Amino acid sequence: MIRFEYNTHVYYKDVDQMGIVYYNRYYEYFEAARTELLRKIGIDVTTIETSGYYLPVITSHCEYLSGAKFDDRLIVETVIRELPKLKLKIEYVVYREKNKEKLVTGHTIHVFTDKNGKPVRPPKDFLHQLNKVF
Amino acid sequence: MIRFEYNTHVYYKDVDQMGIVYYNRYYEYFEAARTELLRKIGIDVTTIETSGYYLPVITSHCEYLSGAKFDDRLIVETVIRELPKLKLKIEYVVYREKNKEKLVTGHTIHVFTDKNGKPVRPPKDFLHQLNKVF
Amino acid sequence: MIRFEYNTHVYYKDVDQMGIVYYNRYYEYFEAARTELLRKIGIDVTTIETSGYYLPVITSHCEYLSGAKFDDRLIVETVIRELPKLKLKIEYVVYREKNKEKLVTGHTIHVFTDKNGKPVRPPKDFLHQLNKVF
Amino acid sequence: MIRFEYNTHVYYKDVDQMGIVYYNRYYEYFEAARTELLRKIGIDVTTIETSGYYLPVITSHCEYLSGAKFDDRLIVETVIRELPKLKLKIEYVVYREKNKEKLVTGHTIHVFTDKNGKPVRPPKDFLHQLNKVF
Repeated sequence: MIRFEYNTHVYYKDVDQMGIVYYNRYYEYFEAARTELLRKIGIDVTTIETSGYYLPVITSHCEYLSGAKFDDRLIVETVIRELPKLKLKIEYVVYREKNKEKLVTGHTIHVFTDKNGKPVRPPKDFLHQLNKVF
Repeated sequence: MIRFEYNTHVYYKDVDQMGIVYYNRYYEYFEAARTELLRKIGIDVTTIETSGYYLPVITSHCEYLSGAKFDDRLIVETVIRELPKLKLKIEYVVYREKNKEKLVTGHTIHVFTDKNGKPVRPPKDFLHQLNKVF
Repeated sequence: MIRFEYNTHVYYKDVDQMGIVYYNRYYEYFEAARTELLRKIGIDVTTIETSGYYLPVITSHCEYLSGAKFDDRLIVETVIRELPKLKLKIEYVVYREKNKEKLVTGHTIHVFTDKNGKPVRPPKDFLHQLNKVF
Repeated sequence: MIRFEYNTHVYYKDVDQMGIVYYNRYYEYFEAARTELLRKIGIDVTTIETSGYYLPVITSHCEYLSGAKFDDRLIVETVIRELPKLKLKIEYVVYREKNKEKLVTGHTIHVFTDKNGKPVRPPKDFLHQLNKVF
């Protein structure tokens, strides 16, 4: 299992007229969180892409328990539980930093594709890096 | 069952460096689609809010089959299959207009809340309007 | 002079906790408006790009007079006043459809570049199309 | 003069199909930068709002010199040069951290309004805090 905490901060740009973060913005926080999780274990998205691979999302899912507000500091707990065969699943839990309230849970599922969008097996380097930390 | 087709168009703002619509933008298309579906059956989001209700999302979900591209015209087929008791589920299928390719499927689940975010039963007017078209 | 009216509609995704459209969203309306203006005079952004050109923004500017609100229908009046030599300037005025209130004025300035981002003269086809309608 | 450096990081969500940050995203970086500049001198946007004031943007402006790319670390140098009478002008310069290349310059102009959007003089506390650091 790989576990990582990404920290972010809510600004006006993300908050709607209910005074809470608009529902699709959490997916932007998830993207930043998984980019940093991968970097931390030695996997760089740009390197993946210059090697001829893409890692698009094939499933996205969120459960909203409570709304993050303007100026909230958030913790995005990001977890990979299983080594990917074809699909890579990443799970997220968003907490408000100051009171540790759980606000949102979610996950994304990814596949590797070539430049033409055809699904392919994960590159060996990727699996190698992942294996080292599991 | 209520069924509605919302049309939208992909601009640069939504497309990422893979040349496809960034994964969380479909949720913006879904929001526009459900707003128009509700309007079509006589339900106005502003009226809901001035009556003291909000209709936040509690679940969002997407499956990505193929990526929409810059300048694609999209059809967002939007469906309510069941009258809501507490939760309102809305389903979406996104097609590329020109070749009818299915690109994305998804759903959102909503609850009514009062101004303080406390879940409440759907307002009677809302159920009344929905009942008329089911 | 070329003049075009683009219509758009404000949804939740664009509205902030002041209850008005977040200030950078008008630039997304501008992008859609200029894409449609160009299409109307026979210029297709995708064709420009497959010919090896890009048309990035080098200046963006907005004056905010009054805030658009959720569910407002907007008219984006879009104007090209001068044939471009190196720079293409496009001007925008955003009106609320129902009361014709002027909400925002702005402009963007563009240059043509090659794939490497080097500024180049506008392609002949582009000038030809523009000349036809001026 | 008040000067502040805000650091941010470019993720996929901000990058378009030219492979550079979409032109309106810099305004989101500016918003975060000015929020943090104000916080640093003891001014909290939420406190402003709970005191009955808003601080909307009345002008936004950007000059784009070079495009930020995915995974770039950016420095947003943020400056207030003059004590506001009615209008508060904030200037921004965006640099790529690794090579100090200047990418974007811009500014925003703000006024204080009451809850109804009517322009008012800056609150005394705000001027007091600003005066202390000028």
